[in-house]
Amino acid sequence: MDPYDSINPLDFRYYGTNARMKKLWKLSESAFVKHLAEVEAALVETLADRKVCSRKVADEVRKAASKVTAKQVYDEESRIKHNIRALANIIRKNVSDEAKPFVHLAATSHDIICTAEALRYKEAAKDIILPSLMELEKLLMKIALREKKTLQVGRTHGQHAEPITFGFAMAEYVSRLGTRIIKIKETAEDLRGKMSGAVGAYNASSLFFDDPERFEKDMLKKLGLEPATHSTQIVEPEYMADFVHAIVSAFGVIANLADDMRHLQRSEIAEVAEGFGSKQVGSSTMPHKRNPISFENVKSLWKAYMPRMITVYMDQLSEHQRDLTNSASSRFTPETVAALVIAADRMTNTLKKLVVDKDSLKRNLSIGMIAAEPLYILLAAHDHPDAHEKVRQLTLMKGSLLENAKKDKSLKPYLSKFTKKQLDVLRNPSLYVGRAVKKTEEVVSHWGGLLHGV
Amino acid sequence: MDPYDSINPLDFRYYGTNARMKKLWKLSESAFVKHLAEVEAALVETLADRKVCSRKVADEVRKAASKVTAKQVYDEESRIKHNIRALANIIRKNVSDEAKPFVHLAATSHDIICTAEALRYKEAAKDIILPSLMELEKLLMKIALREKKTLQVGRTHGQHAEPITFGFAMAEYVSRLGTRIIKIKETAEDLRGKMSGAVGAYNASSLFFDDPERFEKDMLKKLGLEPATHSTQIVEPEYMADFVHAIVSAFGVIANLADDMRHLQRSEIAEVAEGFGSKQVGSSTMPHKRNPISFENVKSLWKAYMPRMITVYMDQLSEHQRDLTNSASSRFTPETVAALVIAADRMTNTLKKLVVDKDSLKRNLSIGMIAAEPLYILLAAHDHPDAHEKVRQLTLMKGSLLENAKKDKSLKPYLSKFTKKQLDVLRNPSLYVGRAVKKTEEVVSHWGGLLHGV
Amino acid sequence: MDPYDSINPLDFRYYGTNARMKKLWKLSESAFVKHLAEVEAALVETLADRKVCSRKVADEVRKAASKVTAKQVYDEESRIKHNIRALANIIRKNVSDEAKPFVHLAATSHDIICTAEALRYKEAAKDIILPSLMELEKLLMKIALREKKTLQVGRTHGQHAEPITFGFAMAEYVSRLGTRIIKIKETAEDLRGKMSGAVGAYNASSLFFDDPERFEKDMLKKLGLEPATHSTQIVEPEYMADFVHAIVSAFGVIANLADDMRHLQRSEIAEVAEGFGSKQVGSSTMPHKRNPISFENVKSLWKAYMPRMITVYMDQLSEHQRDLTNSASSRFTPETVAALVIAADRMTNTLKKLVVDKDSLKRNLSIGMIAAEPLYILLAAHDHPDAHEKVRQLTLMKGSLLENAKKDKSLKPYLSKFTKKQLDVLRNPSLYVGRAVKKTEEVVSHWGGLLHGV
Amino acid sequence: MDPYDSINPLDFRYYGTNARMKKLWKLSESAFVKHLAEVEAALVETLADRKVCSRKVADEVRKAASKVTAKQVYDEESRIKHNIRALANIIRKNVSDEAKPFVHLAATSHDIICTAEALRYKEAAKDIILPSLMELEKLLMKIALREKKTLQVGRTHGQHAEPITFGFAMAEYVSRLGTRIIKIKETAEDLRGKMSGAVGAYNASSLFFDDPERFEKDMLKKLGLEPATHSTQIVEPEYMADFVHAIVSAFGVIANLADDMRHLQRSEIAEVAEGFGSKQVGSSTMPHKRNPISFENVKSLWKAYMPRMITVYMDQLSEHQRDLTNSASSRFTPETVAALVIAADRMTNTLKKLVVDKDSLKRNLSIGMIAAEPLYILLAAHDHPDAHEKVRQLTLMKGSLLENAKKDKSLKPYLSKFTKKQLDVLRNPSLYVGRAVKKTEEVVSHWGGLLHGV
Repeated sequence: MDPYDSINPLDFRYYGTNARMKKLWKLSESAFVKHLAEVEAALVETLADRKVCSRKVADEVRKAASKVTAKQVYDEESRIKHNIRALANIIRKNVSDEAKPFVHLAATSHDIICTAEALRYKEAAKDIILPSLMELEKLLMKIALREKKTLQVGRTHGQHAEPITFGFAMAEYVSRLGTRIIKIKETAEDLRGKMSGAVGAYNASSLFFDDPERFEKDMLKKLGLEPATHSTQIVEPEYMADFVHAIVSAFGVIANLADDMRHLQRSEIAEVAEGFGSKQVGSSTMPHKRNPISFENVKSLWKAYMPRMITVYMDQLSEHQRDLTNSASSRFTPETVAALVIAADRMTNTLKKLVVDKDSLKRNLSIGMIAAEPLYILLAAHDHPDAHEKVRQLTLMKGSLLENAKKDKSLKPYLSKFTKKQLDVLRNPSLYVGRAVKKTEEVVSHWGGLLHGV
Repeated sequence: MDPYDSINPLDFRYYGTNARMKKLWKLSESAFVKHLAEVEAALVETLADRKVCSRKVADEVRKAASKVTAKQVYDEESRIKHNIRALANIIRKNVSDEAKPFVHLAATSHDIICTAEALRYKEAAKDIILPSLMELEKLLMKIALREKKTLQVGRTHGQHAEPITFGFAMAEYVSRLGTRIIKIKETAEDLRGKMSGAVGAYNASSLFFDDPERFEKDMLKKLGLEPATHSTQIVEPEYMADFVHAIVSAFGVIANLADDMRHLQRSEIAEVAEGFGSKQVGSSTMPHKRNPISFENVKSLWKAYMPRMITVYMDQLSEHQRDLTNSASSRFTPETVAALVIAADRMTNTLKKLVVDKDSLKRNLSIGMIAAEPLYILLAAHDHPDAHEKVRQLTLMKGSLLENAKKDKSLKPYLSKFTKKQLDVLRNPSLYVGRAVKKTEEVVSHWGGLLHGV
Repeated sequence: MDPYDSINPLDFRYYGTNARMKKLWKLSESAFVKHLAEVEAALVETLADRKVCSRKVADEVRKAASKVTAKQVYDEESRIKHNIRALANIIRKNVSDEAKPFVHLAATSHDIICTAEALRYKEAAKDIILPSLMELEKLLMKIALREKKTLQVGRTHGQHAEPITFGFAMAEYVSRLGTRIIKIKETAEDLRGKMSGAVGAYNASSLFFDDPERFEKDMLKKLGLEPATHSTQIVEPEYMADFVHAIVSAFGVIANLADDMRHLQRSEIAEVAEGFGSKQVGSSTMPHKRNPISFENVKSLWKAYMPRMITVYMDQLSEHQRDLTNSASSRFTPETVAALVIAADRMTNTLKKLVVDKDSLKRNLSIGMIAAEPLYILLAAHDHPDAHEKVRQLTLMKGSLLENAKKDKSLKPYLSKFTKKQLDVLRNPSLYVGRAVKKTEEVVSHWGGLLHGV
Repeated sequence: MDPYDSINPLDFRYYGTNARMKKLWKLSESAFVKHLAEVEAALVETLADRKVCSRKVADEVRKAASKVTAKQVYDEESRIKHNIRALANIIRKNVSDEAKPFVHLAATSHDIICTAEALRYKEAAKDIILPSLMELEKLLMKIALREKKTLQVGRTHGQHAEPITFGFAMAEYVSRLGTRIIKIKETAEDLRGKMSGAVGAYNASSLFFDDPERFEKDMLKKLGLEPATHSTQIVEPEYMADFVHAIVSAFGVIANLADDMRHLQRSEIAEVAEGFGSKQVGSSTMPHKRNPISFENVKSLWKAYMPRMITVYMDQLSEHQRDLTNSASSRFTPETVAALVIAADRMTNTLKKLVVDKDSLKRNLSIGMIAAEPLYILLAAHDHPDAHEKVRQLTLMKGSLLENAKKDKSLKPYLSKFTKKQLDVLRNPSLYVGRAVKKTEEVVSHWGGLLHGV
């Protein structure tokens, strides 16, 4: 199939035709069939541990399972209209008659599917998501430290507020992404499997074992998983909801970072810019355009994927011991995971080449009235009874705030008490940067420690 | 690329590997590139109409445009990082030096993209969506008429209420789907194109023509489109939002139908059943299961796609003359359209083989107290001052409602005034079916007329 | 109840304590009870038309209905746990024994509720929503015309693109809001009522009339409504979904306008500013702050209300002849309507006092390379074979684009062919404004005509 | 204000007029103003600890703060258009001139607001949410144990699957609600405050202290809170997003329970029923109706509130050191919390009076072919090479599955090897209930332990 004959852009545009994104194959259907087969193999091996079948049977099944392909399963499914029975049929075709009865024995489809899904996302977290996010996190740390002393005007409401440093602004994302990395790690590791049968009461497995819950635990342990406290035909959906929330909220952090960068690249602000290839075209009609297309892309992907959390919340509701209306919908979850990785990697690649324009940073900082806050605070600290209102009125006047303050007779008694250091702050914003530098260092150090080894 | 190496299930599961869904190719990226090239060709033809270039140039460009493939464009884009400039480059490569300067002349990327999107969805509506929905609509009409006299108990709150017919229940969907077909048709035909340049003010085209708005109209007319009243770099997003709302709300109607059928197939109700292949497997462990998997699938697809309307609403907001954060996100819209068609077709195929179990319909109707409403109403009509409360108390008693009513002395004076026909209604629910039969006929006839020719 | 003891901020903050918002009372529960009672009165009047009861009875009922209060109904409901039966009881208490049996006769609760909801929103559109939006629309028209020649740099991707006028930028919103006003009007007028009984088949009303559908039509006509083609216990939900979509998409237009204004008020851009009261405080700690708080508020309200469309889409699904899971949820819809009005009014009040800073507009326009597009287009029009790439390279050089072009030998043959008018465009952006002025006039004129009389 | 003059139903219908819901006042605006004032008091007390002001000043401020009412603040806000400055003004009015300068000193509005919000939700979790959910959890445990041996047919796809017990079905919710209780507790306790100033860099507080981060910690400790690792003008939004996710996902669990109960109350299933008051009316026209209105209400509230998570995710994005577009929107969060409590309490009250109909449970269990699974599994365990397909074919035949199996000659060799116990399972479903009873006990015991003391 020509990839461009696809409808979904993730496959043909952001993953399938992008060599650097090969790693996302682990989220493909082909990879999922491998996970399903792995669970079937683990089941028979646990049967062998219990002497229900021989070790030879278990080995045969593992070998056959390891060779199953998605195409085989889909072809069989198109015949019998049931995907897990199709998988079992394919495995059974490739084992001896002795082994056949033990394939899928005592299991219901969703013992296999739910367990394979837990496996899939747990591995995706470990092998794809966390490495991708950690690469971004480390880059953010590096930029934060590099720019820890680069003065920038802090902005609230789009208005100049008080000075910070560009590194301090980046430290925000070190911290916020840090919490998300931990949340993804925790929720992925907490995904659960099951081997409790068609309605969760171990009806079938009870025919074979006195301790079917022990059997479930043993089988899942082979896969590095644990069972949920209770299950029906499916694992409790909240473990997955927590994981997808972690994914979606991490996406929000990266989208916010993209948004900040987009705005800092505005023509009038121009404090940062995406690096630009020498052959890159910005607009088909405006040859001069250097657009923040990567930051825009990241924000846009977030808009495409964030609402899908609604699907996950709707899928919490499954009637009685389950209805199947969460089946097709849950097939789209790997896409949300893939999209986060695509966005994170694009952010990393863009930030690596980020241009920080120190002239613009300086120019922007010099506009405005950022001395108003320290003036008010120092007046108040020197016992002015209505400092905020007084300074507010001063800011409505034309000319320099400090000069106007000096001219104001009523302020004389207070200003005369100001120390030199205090007056300096009013004159030089670089002295009114608070703990920006120190805090940047602390944030990087804190998260560097917490995330060590992730 | 192996289709199962994809991540998004729509492509590998519901479309790419399904021969009956080939028609959805029209929503693929390959098809979109054809639409883009078609717009570029229309542009140069309109230039030729104006004698800006020769007819020969326009013919050359059309020929070159008709041969462009998605792969060519993507390969060029990977070099220069701009998809529409890439398209223009490919076309220019395949025309004479004389023609080169006229390719994409006076256009901005989104003149081409927005116009091609309008074209794409307008054609998708005409060629794919409306035929698919009309097939379902006609089948619903057929079933409604066929079952117009098949008695069924009406249900509210999951409780037996008053009798209707199964055909009347289906007529609900004839009507609701009918409104959606009209809404999709109207909103698709109202999609707009543009040729107003980079910021919508015809800056570039004004260099060439005194009447750039006329030029825009002429060019769009070749494509069967009209311009929006105003545009920036992009067409006003509300036309698309209306179209996607029509799609999503049509999806809701089909999902509701699926839900109703699911519940009517419950073991205890069993009034309908999906037809089942003789080799079909219902459960990998419960060989007897006959599950409503198609109805479940349709509901589940709705859960996957409905929330994407949020993305469309977020994409209404684009800063100033546009930011690009609606670019990646809008690439996912064709998927929502495709999913509706997939769901509608699946519903059609399933309803074609729908089993209606008349024994169950009869059995279910006989349970309960559906005579309570007519009894209350007739008592009230015969001047009982507190009929509702009286009958409510009767329904709390054991035994037959009618018998208990007859035993109640206080009701004697009223019951004695009942006509035979009124008493018959209390005894025989099939007489208390109101206008169900007639209304079914009217609804089918009404929509048959309105939708004639869609 | 102290309004601040409320939890929902709409009531205590944006409506209940705001004198200008008194009009929103029409969306209150008190007002809804009046609508419900009005429907009950219309029912008995239609019975009187049919001679089922006397005109005197109908008059009695109308009088009693007109006096019902929400408190009475709620107190009765707390006793019997059914709100419409409670309403009927209250009316019956206040009429003669002769009239009692005719109150609510042949109706089911949702005949009354659905009809009253259609009435409520239809009136809200006419009396509150459309007047509010039209006030904003007219103000936008006024500003667009006033500023039609005020030059502004057009922005795409947050980058300077080509020049427009501020009036042209406002004309975008004249047009987009115009489409929404029409959509709200159309969908509100298309809301439907019903009088088809408990399951939609006219079971009860058929006991009284041979033509219950005629009866339904007659009764609804008294209220200015029409029936849906088909109904169950409830009116088809799509009419309401279309109306709420119109509301939500109108909200999106206003939110986009708010966003644009927010960004134009950024310290570095400063092209517009919210008017500021002389006593107004911008920040509790930064006395100089003049924040775009109204624009921020409008955007924020949109974020609070837009997602509620999901509820409406979920409420499309109602099992069989209806389940009640859309009851509580639909009670929140008036809030979304009210929020749109609050946002629109706030936008109107803010734009009335909008400060447009012409110095900033001029300063911003002078930055950058907006001559790049016309240079490329004119070179191409004079047969340069690779004009876009050539100009792109020029823009990578330091200094004036035009000077660099003049210095480039390869461009000589082309530039020498430029007319004076063409060279002027390259020098003076105010000449490269395309049709901005004319288009602004046309858009205002077009919508002024279309919306006349709304 | 007449509560019915409100627009939002939460206030007038579910809380304001409901005596049992008085506890929700803690989520009201009045309560929030108290939290804000409490933070202002804690600030001055920490100043006193540092000897910046005297203990007497701190006491004065605490006393004044404790008396502030919402009305006072709103009246002042309507004058100066800034809510926190308004609060500070009110406090300052009620303290001596000596104390005035220390009110709100070194703080920015959002130091107060973010901290008060953390306080509000942390207290709401402890005092309202967790007690409400724990009451429901304990009731679920009680019902699960009480009904642990009550046989019920397990259902998947709405179809009879394998037997379980009603207690086991309830144990599902013990477990799922258990995970949510823990998640709410954890995320509420992890909510953070801040005292880092207008842009998060401690600019103002650095003028007073060498260790402003220490000052922040000390102040927050007085309120039982901790600071985030980094803050801007606001606390990192992810802490709140995690909390609201916990709330929304808990809502999903309760909605699923409501849905299950609704369906079990269907006329044809009738295994459970909401208790019904002797004067309660089910329908205004059908006197016999006993509808699951509470379960419907809970599901409906979930539909109203679940989508609001989208608002929270959108509010993760705040430009630079913050924009205010998350201000109005975040004012709606208390409503979502209140709605969860309302839904949980309604569920508790309804389940307390839940009618479990053992006759129906028995009758439903006897329908169908639940012996198919054990027959297939036992045949496979006795080495039948194609047991699933064989049994699937048997289920397509008329008559008793077991009888048909016995008549089938090819099965003789296998059936003859079945033990008596195995044959018994095929005859008597109550023996095929797996670990339902034991598992119910374990689940209750597990969660009883884990939640002890919550």
